[in-house]
Amino acid sequence: MKKYVYQFEEGSGQMREILGGKGAGLSEMAHMGIPVPPGFTISTEVCKYYYDHNHQYPEQLDDEVKSHLQQLETKTEKGFGNPQNPLLVSVRSGAVASMPGMMDTILNLGLNDVIVKEWGKDPSKERFVFDSYRRLLQMFGNVVYEIKHEYFEKILQRVKAKRGATQDNELSVEDLQEIIKDFQELYVTHKGKPFPQDPWVQLMESIDAVVKSWNNERAKVYRKLNKIEGLIGTGVNVQCMVFGNLNERSATGVCFTRDPSTGNPLLYGEFLFKAQGEDVVAGIRTPKKIHELETKMSQAYQQLLDTCRRLEKHYRDMQDIEFTIENEKLYMLQTRKGKRTGAAAIKIAHDMHHEGILTKEEAILRVNPDQVNQLLHQRFDEKEKTKFVLLAKGLPASPGAATGKVVFTADDAEIEAEKGEKVILVREETSPEDIKGMHCARGILTARGGMTSHAAVVARGMGKCCVSGADDIHIVEETKTFSSKTGEKIKEGDIISIDGSTGEVFKGALPVIDPEIGDEFDALLQWADAFRTLKVRTNADTPRDALQARSFGAEGIGLCRTEHMFFEGDRIKAVREMILSDSVEVREKALEKILPMQKEDFVGIFKAMKDLPVTIRLLDPPLHEFLPSSETDIIELAKLLDTHPETIKAKIANLKEVNPMLGHRGCRLGITFPEITRMQAKAIIQAACDLTKNENMHIEPEIMVPLVGTHQEFKMQKDIIDETAREVMKEYGITINYLIGTMIEVPRAALTADEIAQTAEFFSFGTNDLTQMTYGFSRDDINKFLPEYLELKILKEDPFITLDKIGVGKLVKLAVEEGRKVNKKIKLGICGEHGGDPDSIDFCHEVGLDYVSCSPFRVPVARVAAAHSAIKRKQ
Amino acid sequence: MKKYVYQFEEGSGQMREILGGKGAGLSEMAHMGIPVPPGFTISTEVCKYYYDHNHQYPEQLDDEVKSHLQQLETKTEKGFGNPQNPLLVSVRSGAVASMPGMMDTILNLGLNDVIVKEWGKDPSKERFVFDSYRRLLQMFGNVVYEIKHEYFEKILQRVKAKRGATQDNELSVEDLQEIIKDFQELYVTHKGKPFPQDPWVQLMESIDAVVKSWNNERAKVYRKLNKIEGLIGTGVNVQCMVFGNLNERSATGVCFTRDPSTGNPLLYGEFLFKAQGEDVVAGIRTPKKIHELETKMSQAYQQLLDTCRRLEKHYRDMQDIEFTIENEKLYMLQTRKGKRTGAAAIKIAHDMHHEGILTKEEAILRVNPDQVNQLLHQRFDEKEKTKFVLLAKGLPASPGAATGKVVFTADDAEIEAEKGEKVILVREETSPEDIKGMHCARGILTARGGMTSHAAVVARGMGKCCVSGADDIHIVEETKTFSSKTGEKIKEGDIISIDGSTGEVFKGALPVIDPEIGDEFDALLQWADAFRTLKVRTNADTPRDALQARSFGAEGIGLCRTEHMFFEGDRIKAVREMILSDSVEVREKALEKILPMQKEDFVGIFKAMKDLPVTIRLLDPPLHEFLPSSETDIIELAKLLDTHPETIKAKIANLKEVNPMLGHRGCRLGITFPEITRMQAKAIIQAACDLTKNENMHIEPEIMVPLVGTHQEFKMQKDIIDETAREVMKEYGITINYLIGTMIEVPRAALTADEIAQTAEFFSFGTNDLTQMTYGFSRDDINKFLPEYLELKILKEDPFITLDKIGVGKLVKLAVEEGRKVNKKIKLGICGEHGGDPDSIDFCHEVGLDYVSCSPFRVPVARVAAAHSAIKRKQ
Repeated sequence: MKKYVYQFEEGSGQMREILGGKGAGLSEMAHMGIPVPPGFTISTEVCKYYYDHNHQYPEQLDDEVKSHLQQLETKTEKGFGNPQNPLLVSVRSGAVASMPGMMDTILNLGLNDVIVKEWGKDPSKERFVFDSYRRLLQMFGNVVYEIKHEYFEKILQRVKAKRGATQDNELSVEDLQEIIKDFQELYVTHKGKPFPQDPWVQLMESIDAVVKSWNNERAKVYRKLNKIEGLIGTGVNVQCMVFGNLNERSATGVCFTRDPSTGNPLLYGEFLFKAQGEDVVAGIRTPKKIHELETKMSQAYQQLLDTCRRLEKHYRDMQDIEFTIENEKLYMLQTRKGKRTGAAAIKIAHDMHHEGILTKEEAILRVNPDQVNQLLHQRFDEKEKTKFVLLAKGLPASPGAATGKVVFTADDAEIEAEKGEKVILVREETSPEDIKGMHCARGILTARGGMTSHAAVVARGMGKCCVSGADDIHIVEETKTFSSKTGEKIKEGDIISIDGSTGEVFKGALPVIDPEIGDEFDALLQWADAFRTLKVRTNADTPRDALQARSFGAEGIGLCRTEHMFFEGDRIKAVREMILSDSVEVREKALEKILPMQKEDFVGIFKAMKDLPVTIRLLDPPLHEFLPSSETDIIELAKLLDTHPETIKAKIANLKEVNPMLGHRGCRLGITFPEITRMQAKAIIQAACDLTKNENMHIEPEIMVPLVGTHQEFKMQKDIIDETAREVMKEYGITINYLIGTMIEVPRAALTADEIAQTAEFFSFGTNDLTQMTYGFSRDDINKFLPEYLELKILKEDPFITLDKIGVGKLVKLAVEEGRKVNKKIKLGICGEHGGDPDSIDFCHEVGLDYVSCSPFRVPVARVAAAHSAIKRKQ
Repeated sequence: MKKYVYQFEEGSGQMREILGGKGAGLSEMAHMGIPVPPGFTISTEVCKYYYDHNHQYPEQLDDEVKSHLQQLETKTEKGFGNPQNPLLVSVRSGAVASMPGMMDTILNLGLNDVIVKEWGKDPSKERFVFDSYRRLLQMFGNVVYEIKHEYFEKILQRVKAKRGATQDNELSVEDLQEIIKDFQELYVTHKGKPFPQDPWVQLMESIDAVVKSWNNERAKVYRKLNKIEGLIGTGVNVQCMVFGNLNERSATGVCFTRDPSTGNPLLYGEFLFKAQGEDVVAGIRTPKKIHELETKMSQAYQQLLDTCRRLEKHYRDMQDIEFTIENEKLYMLQTRKGKRTGAAAIKIAHDMHHEGILTKEEAILRVNPDQVNQLLHQRFDEKEKTKFVLLAKGLPASPGAATGKVVFTADDAEIEAEKGEKVILVREETSPEDIKGMHCARGILTARGGMTSHAAVVARGMGKCCVSGADDIHIVEETKTFSSKTGEKIKEGDIISIDGSTGEVFKGALPVIDPEIGDEFDALLQWADAFRTLKVRTNADTPRDALQARSFGAEGIGLCRTEHMFFEGDRIKAVREMILSDSVEVREKALEKILPMQKEDFVGIFKAMKDLPVTIRLLDPPLHEFLPSSETDIIELAKLLDTHPETIKAKIANLKEVNPMLGHRGCRLGITFPEITRMQAKAIIQAACDLTKNENMHIEPEIMVPLVGTHQEFKMQKDIIDETAREVMKEYGITINYLIGTMIEVPRAALTADEIAQTAEFFSFGTNDLTQMTYGFSRDDINKFLPEYLELKILKEDPFITLDKIGVGKLVKLAVEEGRKVNKKIKLGICGEHGGDPDSIDFCHEVGLDYVSCSPFRVPVARVAAAHSAIKRKQ
């Protein structure tokens, strides 16, 4: 016959599936000999049976419960319903995952009018007994009979007011008896039937209520929101009561075995003397810090310390526990893995290795790469948030926290920043023209664009806080204001705060908490480095970013975008001259002006990276991105170039494209304007030769051709670069090594990787564009339907954040296999945004890439994630 | 020892590679016993040797030529350089492909001052001998010594003018002698050396000139333009002269064995009495029609007729020949496959089968599918074109010819067409809003957009003539004018003519030639049907198109786009109401208005197609395409919907996308607005039920979900359609069969075909979009770099015209294999523009698709192309 009920001693920590988390924890502690009040768990299979069988329980359930209850009577030498020596129990739900919304706890079950009268005769117990009964009536009425909590509360408040009492424990026995009477009336008026006097009925109705609560609305919504799937139901724990409210030598509390915010190896928690259950967290009385227990009950405290240490050693992790002290005797009521911050996770993992609890591998696996991310950015104090007006919630595009004055243009951002003001740049969406203003801003807020919009990508690259796609705000550029859906109006100069880790936008200046990076973090990252096989590079376009990334442990640059350099300072003028020229000659002249500036860019980056590898991507974006859009800028440019504004407008109109993402960009530019490729190749090789000759450095630039779709495109660009390199090296009279490779970001490039790999020396997967084209999703437009796609589970995740292993991944795998087949030495990496996403990094490890490249602030995340992949695969 | 020279009898028709086309033809005729003047061919390998060996000839060449020349002397009993009985020869180039620009012909080689003096003593020959010498001097000087043709011509004109002669044959012996003297002076003044008197020197210098001409600029350009690759060089043919200019009983001519325009089985050609070589084509005298030869020289004519018949039987194809008659004896100088029009190709292939020359398979293979295309459209008379001003040359976007008044808006097109005017719609580029105007126009001319731009695709679908991307014209919409690069100004109402088969745009009205489709064509198409295994469907959105396509033999509709229906008549208002509504309810109400109209659309199409299968694609384009753009239209719409124009403008702005091709369209619409899918499914199933119930028809609609990238998308749309269908069928009380399938046009769909095929009943490859996304090419923007890509051979062909078998094709193949693996019954077709391209059809046959679908006017092309594939594969 199937077994549905388990005494704690019959179960174990391994049986979470059928005992639930709480039941398994209690069983495990019982086995360990830790003082746990005796009890039993009704298996989750009962819950499943109930829903599988049209709300019927297994026939044998009653008998099984009865038999287990008898065992409790035997153990405690008490009687369930015995007025002289009553056995009281608690009933608690307990699924595999904890789940707010489900029925939680009923304490003191087993009392009735007769028992309290009889049991309460002992004056030393009288007040305790009536207090316990009052609690039972309140909890049972609320959770089993669904009588609203506020009705009970009202009665309680009335009597307290009458007595002039502020706290529950100031009530007298008489007060409690009055409350009990009134509570019992509530049953009749609101439920139409009295409180069940039969303890057995109380028990079975409570069990039924727990099972039913599995499928109440709140629980269902919670499971959906938190993607909790595949559970069969909740268990029900029935446990002998111990009483923290018995007397002054009793108490109840909750605590973590280490500080969950910092990871410090000290108990961290709170307790109350003479209290029961929820009193600690309900805020009825102010609970005391856990270490205060030591002075009052040093023995029990010592016992708690020991128990916590044992539990940590046993579970090999920090625990979150509940305990009760009855007459100075400690009882454990719950233990589970404790939630913690990123900082705590790192410190705990680090310490536990040094305490001999965890191996290095285990310590690394204990740190979630996403938690690492938290550490590297400023953040707001969560508790302060409620004090501020929430204006909007956008996408958490780039983590961190920033407060500052609102500005609406990149120019204004520059002007204000020069004055020393902290500003938040608020834009409908950003474009490459805004780069300088973005650099000057503390944070960026856009009303449009997704997680991989221009603003988001650039901000992450800069390690700058950004909230994108906050479509609740409506920007009016003319008046330099924006309004929120809540009706607030924000004008230029007003202060706002944006949280790039949550997407929240607040009015006013929230206090900011600085990131703390300790030695433990450093140590842990170094352990990670020893295990991982994937190299971690960074995406960096400036010496500043490059230095930042190196300080985070980057082992090279995987993507240095040259287009950002085109906007710096005066060179944009030369760039525009180049674009607007009609002849190769004029274009070459303009390029000649840009050449020395580009060369200096590369010198700066090579120096910043010392001798680490640097991959430089040739010009990628469509040319129209470099042209001005405002009338005044156009007129100014016309003057500069000694031409007519209409001529420039016509050129701009001519460069306009229906689908710029699929247009005249990438190597298509280098093929139609080979002089651009030539200039860039020259600048790179000149910079490398300069440093080799004059600074005795060893530079091996990796030159990357973007948007290749056919091997002919690549070959043609490679020929230009090789020829230019030969010329430059001849001038310098030296030879340097350099590699020429390509982005694999067009599906056709992946499909014809075998052809391309014959001449390419490396592939770098540009998974942003590859995802755009493989799915046919424009990342600038995806927000029109992505929310519904995620809601309807058409997509499990935003494919621009986590690489789609099935579709896009198939192309990556194909290109890796075919590429290596024809060119064993080919270097393979990824430089899309996915290079900083742990799940995607795992995929990169699996398919055998040589390195990932991500934004500087993601480098430590990637180091940990790469180590996870390596360790897990080894196991 | 390697052999470099071949007597005609030593060669054969199979040896084109080393003898060239001309040499092989002469050898073959010699073998057949057809009277060919004896001669030999210097192999193409000599040419190759020359270019491989730094412009040196093989050592043995002189001896070989000498020995072969002696054989000619023996055969003819004449002597090379013998003044009494001189052997004269012609020297002609001859590569595998004929190649204008290469040195062509030198006749009468072997004459010199001494020989003409001696040989010309015979008075009956005197004039002939001097005439021949005059010709030799002229040809040799021009082609070997590169003395300009005009110098010779000037002398000729001067002497003719002195004599008052209009034609060469009016010149006397004295005149000719004067000319010869002057010609020889030209050698000294312009070449610095006299005409070589030694026949051997003449011969070897001529051979050298032929070999050198292989790599002259004109020949190289011609090979490049015509993509002639892989040839090793030219051969040189040295042949004994026969003299059409000997006397009145001699003649020379060219003819086709059948009429190359119509295919009529009668000799078609021209000749001149007493003439030589180029005289016939040079237009010096007016040549006579070939049949006139019969009356004058009936025996030679009969011999010519017989020879032509023998050659046709032997070569099993229509021949293009050259002949000379000397003293009423016929000599053949050349035979090769004759070029012909599409109409002729069909008639000849058809007739040759009935004449027992060709099998049906061979007859079909003789017709180039592209030639079929010519037959189905009006065309201009090529000869008339020179009389008109060419305004511009755009892309030949949709074949046919049209003349009409210029209009600049779709509305104007409608207004003028209603008045009965023929109009040409001239637009910067077209959009779906222009559809009605396009229907009313005779032809469409756009200044922007490629072969697969909106205008091009829609026009081809309509079978309407279109020239797209004519960027030489500059449209000024405000003034309703356009100007051409040539400086012409065209205003509204002016007449222009556009040739959609060549891309030409002319000022004025060119005369139009109607297409002729004979019974032979019909018969041939039916033979093709018997061989092909691919079905041929059509892309048609209206009953009119459907009927048209059926008349061309379409076996179903492979793509019925429903969005075009949304523009018809009043329904655009309801469509706009639907798009602009903020709630599902309002949207559903608007859709209710559209439903009966959509249903009628489908009833019309089902009826037009009888019981043939019809694939209907659900709404595909982004919604903003349906919204008005002009201020007045917006105001009007605001009135209609009782809202503010600003509201509508805001909505339009909100729907704007950065990359609409990758945006909110296709099934993404059906997922965010399931009510649209529901309405369309309802209309389709209602139409099918109506006809099944009331008209006793058997309708099995195939419902196609566009732009699927994940199997979840497809499943979700399928569920809606299935549910709707169940409801409709229940209402009608009947059950009909229907299929639900998907476009495979997103790379990810091809990559995950195994998942999608589990629920999809058919795949239709949308190779337009698949090409766009696989290459990352926006077809609306590709013209910015495509010309250079083709020029530089980065692309061999426009991938939107001919399917890229390597990249895009790999995805198609993968989807076919994976799809069939999980679903053996799955129907597979193609509905992109490639479905009408012979080369792409061949690929479809190869990968095993079930059908191709193309625009109505391409259906016969596809039928022939599909038959070609099947026949070739069998062979």
